[in-house]
Amino acid sequence: MNTLVRSTALILMSLASISGADERWSTADVMAGLEASDWRQPDPANLLYMQLASGTVIMELAPAFAPQNILNIKTLAEERYFDDLAIIRSQDNYVVQWADPAEEEGTAKSLGSAKESVKAEFERSLDGIEIVTIESRDSYAEIVGFSNGFPAGSDGTKAWLAHCYGMVGVARDNETDSGNGTSLYVVTGHAPRHLDRNVTLVGRVISGIEHMTVLPRGAAEMGYYESLDEATPIVRIRLGVDVAPEDRVKIELMRTDTEAFSDYVMSRRYRHEEWFVEPTGRIEICNINPPIRVTE
Amino acid sequence: MNTLVRSTALILMSLASISGADERWSTADVMAGLEASDWRQPDPANLLYMQLASGTVIMELAPAFAPQNILNIKTLAEERYFDDLAIIRSQDNYVVQWADPAEEEGTAKSLGSAKESVKAEFERSLDGIEIVTIESRDSYAEIVGFSNGFPAGSDGTKAWLAHCYGMVGVARDNETDSGNGTSLYVVTGHAPRHLDRNVTLVGRVISGIEHMTVLPRGAAEMGYYESLDEATPIVRIRLGVDVAPEDRVKIELMRTDTEAFSDYVMSRRYRHEEWFVEPTGRIEICNINPPIRVTE
Repeated sequence: MNTLVRSTALILMSLASISGADERWSTADVMAGLEASDWRQPDPANLLYMQLASGTVIMELAPAFAPQNILNIKTLAEERYFDDLAIIRSQDNYVVQWADPAEEEGTAKSLGSAKESVKAEFERSLDGIEIVTIESRDSYAEIVGFSNGFPAGSDGTKAWLAHCYGMVGVARDNETDSGNGTSLYVVTGHAPRHLDRNVTLVGRVISGIEHMTVLPRGAAEMGYYESLDEATPIVRIRLGVDVAPEDRVKIELMRTDTEAFSDYVMSRRYRHEEWFVEPTGRIEICNINPPIRVTE
Repeated sequence: MNTLVRSTALILMSLASISGADERWSTADVMAGLEASDWRQPDPANLLYMQLASGTVIMELAPAFAPQNILNIKTLAEERYFDDLAIIRSQDNYVVQWADPAEEEGTAKSLGSAKESVKAEFERSLDGIEIVTIESRDSYAEIVGFSNGFPAGSDGTKAWLAHCYGMVGVARDNETDSGNGTSLYVVTGHAPRHLDRNVTLVGRVISGIEHMTVLPRGAAEMGYYESLDEATPIVRIRLGVDVAPEDRVKIELMRTDTEAFSDYVMSRRYRHEEWFVEPTGRIEICNINPPIRVTE
């Protein structure tokens, strides 16, 4: 699609927002018509690079939703707390989780200047953030949409991040303020949305999740490994700003506050690829994965 | 929970069906109160045992929804068509798929007495099957529920199986009748419900899905492996009736047409475990995984 055709797509889009089914662009059409301004470069200050022996996992943090927890996680990363920790849990169709394996042996790593306890940030006021809403009959929230690329739910007053695939959260015990970011989990299965507003979500994996999802499942209860010998060592976790510029991945994420993203969602709602016979006309928030690309 | 307490639970349940939030049983409570009649043994004639080097994957077929496709799959299994085929695709957050790796090299295995082409069975009449409905604002279907343990959607006239985690489908080309069961896929990520009514679903993995979900992701387009060297050989696939009785797994599935299952769903809708602060009060069909147990 060239720029001219792209303009036509936008005109069609205005009509499509009424009738929907009249929109005939496939996802490939929409992607081919994207311009540089439809993409954003994530702020390296909000990226975590996790190095495993098998490769790099990159997470983008969402400070608008969990500022205090993320502050603590950044302190932990800056002070190299996570280095030599391990992925100690992989529960099929649910989560992987990492932590200090020595925590329960009384030889836990020092938290340095990070806090032992951080207040829960399960939800926040809708004031001060923008959620571009997605029309969907969501099973869990009255309102769903994307806020700066992150899937979110809302009741019209409060807003919270949604437990879609790849979302990163702060593990906690029964006390809501018992999490501090030393142990984080990543959703690796069907969206466990019942966790929404029960745990502090802090971001999403934007690259390399396959290094986590292929890990052997733990045989102990809840997918924990029976022995630490089975755990996957974390070589290190660094903030994006602390990664040497030449080692940073030139990653770009599709913006979720543009006409192009509306086109994209429409192309996922109505599937016009030749293969589809039932175009559905419906969409679910966790079934929308805003495109990500590496530019070099 | 003993039988007496169980009766009390059922009385509470009747009230709970009005108010919901008054139901205080946790999932563990419900499970502890189950009786033998709350479980079913799947018919071995409807089971497929897939043997991989890493272990056994067991699938239950749903002939009520795809009788012709399942008939062909049974013929293929009986005539040992699947033996020595391979898993040729693993796409993160989507599917694994197996097929005859030689298919595109002109040396494809003979289908024996199985059919080359089987009519699509994307949906069926609601008449003649029972769907125990689940109250849910589903993003894709007006009505959702379980039919003999399988997640299903309906518009009040037609019914179809839903693409939840672990569901097994018949791969096809653009022609709707181009599938024949020689190549099957399993959902290994967030439910791709936009595939509902676009592909024939034939069943669900009920044991050993972790042998599929940990497979390395394919680097070629759509998660196909770049080289067949990366593919995972299938030692064999056998119908449950063709597995020696002593090698059959004594697997039981929770029935989905009982009061106990209503209790179970209620315990997933309202989470009363101490950990939860937000009991949600909502549920989504693919976030309900009917319990499965091995009895010896």
